Amino acid sequence: MKVFENVEADKLNQVLERPSLNFSRVEKIVTPILEKVKRGGDRALKKFALEYDHVELKDLWVSEEELKAAHDVVGDSLKRSIDVAKTNILRFHEAQKVQPLEMEVMPGVHCSRRSIPIRRVGLYIPGGTAPLFSTVLMLGIPARIAGCDEIILSSPPNNLGEINPIVLYAADLLGITKVIKLGGAQAIAAMAYGTESVPRVDKIFGPGNQYVTVAKQLVARDTVAIDMPAGPSEVMVVVDGDSKASFAASDLLSQAEHGIDSQVVLVSTSREKAEKVIKKIKKQLTDLPRKHIAEKALRGSVAIIVNSKKEMLNVIDSYGPEHLILLLKNAHEIAGKVSNVGSVFIGPYTPESFGDYASGTNHTLPTNGWANAYSGVSLDSFLKKITYQEVSKKGLKKLGPVVQELAEAEHLYGHKNAVSIRLRSLQND
Amino acid sequence: MKVFENVEADKLNQVLERPSLNFSRVEKIVTPILEKVKRGGDRALKKFALEYDHVELKDLWVSEEELKAAHDVVGDSLKRSIDVAKTNILRFHEAQKVQPLEMEVMPGVHCSRRSIPIRRVGLYIPGGTAPLFSTVLMLGIPARIAGCDEIILSSPPNNLGEINPIVLYAADLLGITKVIKLGGAQAIAAMAYGTESVPRVDKIFGPGNQYVTVAKQLVARDTVAIDMPAGPSEVMVVVDGDSKASFAASDLLSQAEHGIDSQVVLVSTSREKAEKVIKKIKKQLTDLPRKHIAEKALRGSVAIIVNSKKEMLNVIDSYGPEHLILLLKNAHEIAGKVSNVGSVFIGPYTPESFGDYASGTNHTLPTNGWANAYSGVSLDSFLKKITYQEVSKKGLKKLGPVVQELAEAEHLYGHKNAVSIRLRSLQND
Repeated sequence: MKVFENVEADKLNQVLERPSLNFSRVEKIVTPILEKVKRGGDRALKKFALEYDHVELKDLWVSEEELKAAHDVVGDSLKRSIDVAKTNILRFHEAQKVQPLEMEVMPGVHCSRRSIPIRRVGLYIPGGTAPLFSTVLMLGIPARIAGCDEIILSSPPNNLGEINPIVLYAADLLGITKVIKLGGAQAIAAMAYGTESVPRVDKIFGPGNQYVTVAKQLVARDTVAIDMPAGPSEVMVVVDGDSKASFAASDLLSQAEHGIDSQVVLVSTSREKAEKVIKKIKKQLTDLPRKHIAEKALRGSVAIIVNSKKEMLNVIDSYGPEHLILLLKNAHEIAGKVSNVGSVFIGPYTPESFGDYASGTNHTLPTNGWANAYSGVSLDSFLKKITYQEVSKKGLKKLGPVVQELAEAEHLYGHKNAVSIRLRSLQND
Repeated sequence: MKVFENVEADKLNQVLERPSLNFSRVEKIVTPILEKVKRGGDRALKKFALEYDHVELKDLWVSEEELKAAHDVVGDSLKRSIDVAKTNILRFHEAQKVQPLEMEVMPGVHCSRRSIPIRRVGLYIPGGTAPLFSTVLMLGIPARIAGCDEIILSSPPNNLGEINPIVLYAADLLGITKVIKLGGAQAIAAMAYGTESVPRVDKIFGPGNQYVTVAKQLVARDTVAIDMPAGPSEVMVVVDGDSKASFAASDLLSQAEHGIDSQVVLVSTSREKAEKVIKKIKKQLTDLPRKHIAEKALRGSVAIIVNSKKEMLNVIDSYGPEHLILLLKNAHEIAGKVSNVGSVFIGPYTPESFGDYASGTNHTLPTNGWANAYSGVSLDSFLKKITYQEVSKKGLKKLGPVVQELAEAEHLYGHKNAVSIRLRSLQND
């Protein structure tokens, strides 16, 4: 972990630079996969399963028996823990419901706005080294609250054609029974374009590797929405002279173990404290099973010493971290002032792990600096807001002449005429 | 206008097919423009202004004098009409504010969510045949309500280096004083990457031609968000045996006059009524100044006869129109059931023009079938929602063991350790 101090404003972006995805290189690999699924449908999907997941799939879908069997594999204690997480996530996302907006904007002009569920959504759950059942909860719960008609979950199988049972258990717990055994760009293509057995969806959610990320961005050109552009996971931990170095070290490591491209940044008001944190990292690292991953991630990580509150805020907002952990005395004050961040963890007893699993907030958050313009996934991500308007005769008489004048000023006489013809019809009223 | 009846469900998409944008072709033209602006900055921008707008720009920015002068050019009556529109749009968008969400999800676990303005936004206003000052209102008003720090407006100048005075007046009225004389893909590049004189923004809004549309999608890969993917404007007008054919015709024409690629669809429960509407279109067309545009747009348009409410709803949701005009007796019932639509116009006295200018709803809406997953622009489009969590000692003791178990089940021991180390620190409490 490199330590920087007195970083000038124009150097900050350089110090905090993230590794950039070589979009064109990945695009060259992903585009033919998308094309093949578009043309070949299920047959292409099975071929890719053989090629990438080393499994000959008879059926792309998880059977009812497989879903049931998952309940027997997951232990009772884990089931109870999943229930606690589910309850908290449900509670916080239920509270995000908004009432329909209805108002008479001016006499006779009624406008309203209502939230309507997106009909068909696809949730992508990566496979690989960790079974991310927590992501099933984070995407599935708001999808259920929103009331989406059709929820498809896609996750890559192992070479026996099985999806991790905890992932299946979490899906079934939420009533998500349409689960397909597909991973990678081909899974994204199947949900974006549809095949004989996979229905086309309206919006695709979920994290993934660079192929999944690029596939999502490419299909997003063709009438499929995506949750957000993605990048490697990130944490920024902010400490002062009084923070517990061991807490900060554990938070930085919990991010570093995610993947070798994980982004880990320490911000400290004290050089001494930063050095203590770095020492603690080295100590804690030795006991970590995913040590080899964390070590590589830490090589690219930085610590920045800041000399004022203003500099601290500037470092945070310039970077725009996915997760911001404030191990500070004045954590509340700083939390109230930051602008570019996905989710904020306040005080000594709130490690990122709480948000990752069970505090109730969503863990699908903007990475790669996207926190400057994107929000994390929430109930809103599964809804559309439609506006409605109804103008009465009275409203037409009052607002009609205004619209006529505005349309004429834009040289749109057809727009004006749609009003004029209606106003004329009222002349005999 | 071609008339279809008894369209089978699987043929519907074919009948309602929209012209598709040749993304790759346009990308080949746009990519070098983006690159040149990225590398050449202001000099490249001035060169493009000379090449495309045929004007030698000394200053890219509209001066204070130009903004002031616009007030003298716009007549008092138009000013009053703009004021009415502004008031209605302001009212409906102010009402979209939501209170911060705060809750104790379980004892000692506090979660909250707050709306934070996106700091820097860029509004693109097309030039061309019509001065779209209404779009200045539709984008500028929610940006002001949200409280964005920096609002940049970009619009192409004429060959005298001037932007339409009504556009400037509307901008100044909203307190938007940073206006740049730039159009096309180069304007999008300037706001996305920043140049010596144009600041980089976090999100770009606004309609435009295919070059602008593709430029927005391309820059959206690089840490600039966009409002939504765009396509030609659309209307679907639904009539029954009792609807006024002349009203329907005027609404279809007000869309057709937008551009030769405008999409115009009539849905009718009665073949007779559909034929009447088509006759009225021919009659009304003769008086329209933009007749040549509307005629071309109408060539690609269709009328669909439906035989049941179910079929009607299926046609509407399959198409997913930007604007849906319900000239129906049971307009309210249908409005309550449609799912894929940008904005709904209910009843005989609510032409699309009202929403385009002054009812209060936003006119920046999803086109090209994106209504299946996107909402129109609203106050939300200028905000991010950040989540916060704070866990007390009590909360840590209660929820900590749950998170430990969940992290372990995902094989993420670093995540578990961030909790364990904190739980251990409480043992002496």
